[in-house]
Amino acid sequence: MQQILDFLTARQDTALHELCQFLRIPSVSADSAYIPQMQACANWVLQAMTDAGLQATIYPTAGHPIVYGERLVDPALPTVLIYGHYDVQPPDPLDLWTTPAFEPTIRDGRLYARGATDDKGQLFTHLKSIQAWMQVNGGLPLNVKVLIEGEEECGGVHLDDFLKSHRELLRADVAVVSDTSQYGDGIPAITCGLRGIVAAEVRLRGPAKDLHSGVYGGSLANPVNALTRMCGALIGPDGRVQIPGFYDDVLDLTVEERSGYASLPFSEADFLKEVGSGAVFGEQGWSTLERRTARPTCDINGILGGYTGEGPKTIIPSKAMAKITCRLVPRMTPQKVLDGLESFLRAHCPPGIEFEFRRFHGCEAFVFDPTSDWLVAAKRAVETAFGQPPVLFREGGSIPVVLSFKQILGIDTLLLGWGRNSDNLHSPDEHIHLQDFHRGTRASACLWQELATVRPAR
Amino acid sequence: MQQILDFLTARQDTALHELCQFLRIPSVSADSAYIPQMQACANWVLQAMTDAGLQATIYPTAGHPIVYGERLVDPALPTVLIYGHYDVQPPDPLDLWTTPAFEPTIRDGRLYARGATDDKGQLFTHLKSIQAWMQVNGGLPLNVKVLIEGEEECGGVHLDDFLKSHRELLRADVAVVSDTSQYGDGIPAITCGLRGIVAAEVRLRGPAKDLHSGVYGGSLANPVNALTRMCGALIGPDGRVQIPGFYDDVLDLTVEERSGYASLPFSEADFLKEVGSGAVFGEQGWSTLERRTARPTCDINGILGGYTGEGPKTIIPSKAMAKITCRLVPRMTPQKVLDGLESFLRAHCPPGIEFEFRRFHGCEAFVFDPTSDWLVAAKRAVETAFGQPPVLFREGGSIPVVLSFKQILGIDTLLLGWGRNSDNLHSPDEHIHLQDFHRGTRASACLWQELATVRPAR
Repeated sequence: MQQILDFLTARQDTALHELCQFLRIPSVSADSAYIPQMQACANWVLQAMTDAGLQATIYPTAGHPIVYGERLVDPALPTVLIYGHYDVQPPDPLDLWTTPAFEPTIRDGRLYARGATDDKGQLFTHLKSIQAWMQVNGGLPLNVKVLIEGEEECGGVHLDDFLKSHRELLRADVAVVSDTSQYGDGIPAITCGLRGIVAAEVRLRGPAKDLHSGVYGGSLANPVNALTRMCGALIGPDGRVQIPGFYDDVLDLTVEERSGYASLPFSEADFLKEVGSGAVFGEQGWSTLERRTARPTCDINGILGGYTGEGPKTIIPSKAMAKITCRLVPRMTPQKVLDGLESFLRAHCPPGIEFEFRRFHGCEAFVFDPTSDWLVAAKRAVETAFGQPPVLFREGGSIPVVLSFKQILGIDTLLLGWGRNSDNLHSPDEHIHLQDFHRGTRASACLWQELATVRPAR
Repeated sequence: MQQILDFLTARQDTALHELCQFLRIPSVSADSAYIPQMQACANWVLQAMTDAGLQATIYPTAGHPIVYGERLVDPALPTVLIYGHYDVQPPDPLDLWTTPAFEPTIRDGRLYARGATDDKGQLFTHLKSIQAWMQVNGGLPLNVKVLIEGEEECGGVHLDDFLKSHRELLRADVAVVSDTSQYGDGIPAITCGLRGIVAAEVRLRGPAKDLHSGVYGGSLANPVNALTRMCGALIGPDGRVQIPGFYDDVLDLTVEERSGYASLPFSEADFLKEVGSGAVFGEQGWSTLERRTARPTCDINGILGGYTGEGPKTIIPSKAMAKITCRLVPRMTPQKVLDGLESFLRAHCPPGIEFEFRRFHGCEAFVFDPTSDWLVAAKRAVETAFGQPPVLFREGGSIPVVLSFKQILGIDTLLLGWGRNSDNLHSPDEHIHLQDFHRGTRASACLWQELATVRPAR
């Protein structure tokens, strides 16, 4: 094992150089203008898999392509399915980046670029660790299957189709995903729970065109007023979501879980400094950590209507639009939440406004069994690379693929995050600490050794 | 008089050609990018005044220039102050114009361009009628002073400064403004009341940057949720403005006024077809005509926050903004309404959100004395040109200058509208009917004759 770790240390600069190539490709999946770059990025991943010693193939889908590679050693040994996504969030607002989103730049021990931590930088650690095993040992201690998709950031539906139609190809004992974070700086974590999500867009149309607000004001419903009325009613002054039945199915934290939360190091002052805000706010009766990870939410992600340029413009706008996501916790069902959201918004819509509700993706929350041998093995690998045992923690984000792996392939997922919550994922100046990239790669190398010792329950 | 009208008829094509030159200048006052075009437009107006036989001058201001011209005949005769504005609303949304906003085009007896009816096309009728008097009669039957400003559409403050510092220059017995509309197609109107207005912008800032809605959702206030909450509370389900005290000072319509409203021709079906909407909506207890013209309003003119591109983006936005205008009726005071609006919004602002409230312009409502000799004279002029007597009616829009003339110069304003509410003012495909432009010019020519017969009360 030491030989492999030494090999990785000697090749750190090469690995970084290759990661920068990966980050230079603007693989924005949500915007159809980037389709050629998505294909180029899939090709790049294919080559990186081949270089790592995997047999790799690109599978086209009706959306963005999936890249798959494998190296099978012995069917008696454990088989691990490694997942990542090569697509990234849109880079805007562009003017808030210190250096351009797709020109990777190193400053102060960090590598800045869209995708640096979510998820290119993290998934790449697994390809580099496999390559090290191959080059040093000439083989791997277990069977690996690597699946890298391109629709994670846009709620694409084609991965699930692929999983369903390739169950045999993807058969494995456990999945590994590095798309989460450490608990704190240098405090590694294994994420044993994730919130689910639903996403939707509401579009309103009032008069056929923008109207003079003096000549017509008072005579008919203004779609921006209507939109703010319906969206503004979503959260009460107590921070609770007002959709009827929203909390009915929520699995509340147990007393033990709340004790565990209370014992984690957390400074509200540091948190507020990190996000640049003056105060926390949210559902009454729950701590900030609990609200972030174990309570459901309803956030408006974007809103647009009418005149938004300089100065006043005295119009009644013709239309308005808002994008909304809800984070779900265990036992909540996406369909029911979307139905409740749509009914709630419709109920607040005045006469004369056309109401359109578009549903994007949705997935349930996920909780991992903390007694699993896979989890214990993974803890050892992380401890070796980070020098301390990982915290078991829930994350607030959603990784729909974890639920798909459970439902379609019947396997649990080890969520091993090398990055940090402060890495600006989904924001301007996204980055990864070079230290995290390198120790993540070492932890990944140790992981194959540790997981190889687990006896799969087949 | 007939000679003058014949002269105008013979020169219709020339007048239209000149108006098209005027409309080609993109004099958008709200956007500082158009400053050179504003200057060019002022120069054009100066030349048009000179061509009409006026002694004309450009007065620079700290904002956009004012153009002034006069022809003084005899101090014993009435002096009329004619007002117009050469600036126009921003042309966007550009993609909804059939032909470009600043390329005047005639289709189906209408001239399409931004400013065609508001206000270049209407103010130009007065310059052409003066020119006709000068060329046919070699002089005018009364003293005229013409004031054309460039900040009407952006709530500029410099006109009032100019009025205050040029009281002697502008001394007059009555003002004439053509910036309103006929009551209906071919039913001329003299507007004897206008609503006032206040305009403001609210800006909210939450976290220092956009945050991942999974990682941070639930922990702190989302500025778009906050903005929709505060703005959405402005109008109740009964259509009434919810700001405490908003209606306290409102001068309700009298029983006689309500009877007058009820007797005006008005088809709700035609109205809905005109605006392209499926239903009317507004303050309960008042008819649509009453709500449009004699009741106060609160409209959001524009809203923006977070991600507004294609597909979902799972963020908590960093900031959000909305533009709001309220229309005021007699006895409401702008300052009090703005104070109430600001307090109301602030009261709905959750912790951790920075609140900024920007105040734009404001003006009170206006009501004209229906027994005035000036009004009776103007009715005769309009009847001559349109073939039927004008309806006396209130308009829903605001013309701040009317109030300034009253307060600073001590004179009432005759609001003689040649255009139509259906002319798409402030919207794409703004236009003026050629017929309205020509009969407006004839009514203006008659007006000088009629007003000359009134004995001024000095």
